[in-house]
Amino acid sequence: MTVPIDFWFSIGSPYTFLAVMRLPEVAEKAGVEVRWRPFDARAVQLDANDVPFADKPLKAAYMWRDIERRAAKFGLPMRLPIPYPLPELEQANRVAVLAADEGWCPAYAIATYRRWFVDRDPAGSEPNLSSSIREAGQDPARVLKQANSGAVADALDAATREAKEIGIFGSPSFVADGELFWGHDRLEDAIEWQHNLDQGNPG
Amino acid sequence: MTVPIDFWFSIGSPYTFLAVMRLPEVAEKAGVEVRWRPFDARAVQLDANDVPFADKPLKAAYMWRDIERRAAKFGLPMRLPIPYPLPELEQANRVAVLAADEGWCPAYAIATYRRWFVDRDPAGSEPNLSSSIREAGQDPARVLKQANSGAVADALDAATREAKEIGIFGSPSFVADGELFWGHDRLEDAIEWQHNLDQGNPG
Repeated sequence: MTVPIDFWFSIGSPYTFLAVMRLPEVAEKAGVEVRWRPFDARAVQLDANDVPFADKPLKAAYMWRDIERRAAKFGLPMRLPIPYPLPELEQANRVAVLAADEGWCPAYAIATYRRWFVDRDPAGSEPNLSSSIREAGQDPARVLKQANSGAVADALDAATREAKEIGIFGSPSFVADGELFWGHDRLEDAIEWQHNLDQGNPG
Repeated sequence: MTVPIDFWFSIGSPYTFLAVMRLPEVAEKAGVEVRWRPFDARAVQLDANDVPFADKPLKAAYMWRDIERRAAKFGLPMRLPIPYPLPELEQANRVAVLAADEGWCPAYAIATYRRWFVDRDPAGSEPNLSSSIREAGQDPARVLKQANSGAVADALDAATREAKEIGIFGSPSFVADGELFWGHDRLEDAIEWQHNLDQGNPG
């Protein structure tokens, strides 16, 4: 019996690209189950007065170069510059919430990040949005209608409140048995933590 | 013929503990030479309106837990809580500038970080300061007199300006052939970059 790790993420976060693309394979190798938990990281950051890259041009320039180097290291294609910030990130994350509820979130997240980082089509906007929903095996008309219902918006708000309550301050974050790991750099550490718990070893 | 990597660091930065403690061994294994470049990261951050942990209690709490987990992973002893921020970090870094000029910077930086993180004595203040200078084989009276001269203060200011000019925004940072790497998490990547250059491979 294994307990899933929670993967808290927001589509729109550049570094989350690396985590979305790598997590499924790393988790599967370790035999760790993952629960995909979309939330609105921008709302959390505005709330905490901690928006990492806005008004910090040096750090933002570094971020893109760093992501590019890491992507090359992991063999992940990407083509800079890409549109940023996303004009419709809430739309992107509402669809993710519905996808998580229905079980097709990884396929959607991977597809939409690839279209954003390789084809330079912003996630959350057309044509990326419908193409990525379709790639995940779903009907865009049905999904978009449902994703724009009050129930899904409420679910995104509730997830964002839950993230704040457990001390999450950015995307991507991982929670393994209450232990918080922040940043794609901690992906392996989080998986290892959960793997050790599953084996009955203290973390 | 190898070109040294520049290790830009400020005593006072918590994450820099991990880099100071691990860099000498990682660099030696890779056959990469390191130039220790103390600067005043706080001045750079205040200038850029980017002080990472002040007024961000959630992130600060996470930082300590993260450093503790990483230190355990690397087998580095530390005992939380430790005094933070340092009341005399400029003193700590003036001594580092003199030490770098005279060739005993790694021994001093390692000694003062160990006293701060294990014995809980703040770096830059007594008894940490004189004990760490002595541990690096130097006479504290001579060093402190010289470190408090205008020439050393000017050298620290000049180093800080140079850091800003090449786009450094935090400690620790590494520069290998003009390529900037930020954070102790990039230590291995920076060393590998330089190592590949030394071997004649493009990074």
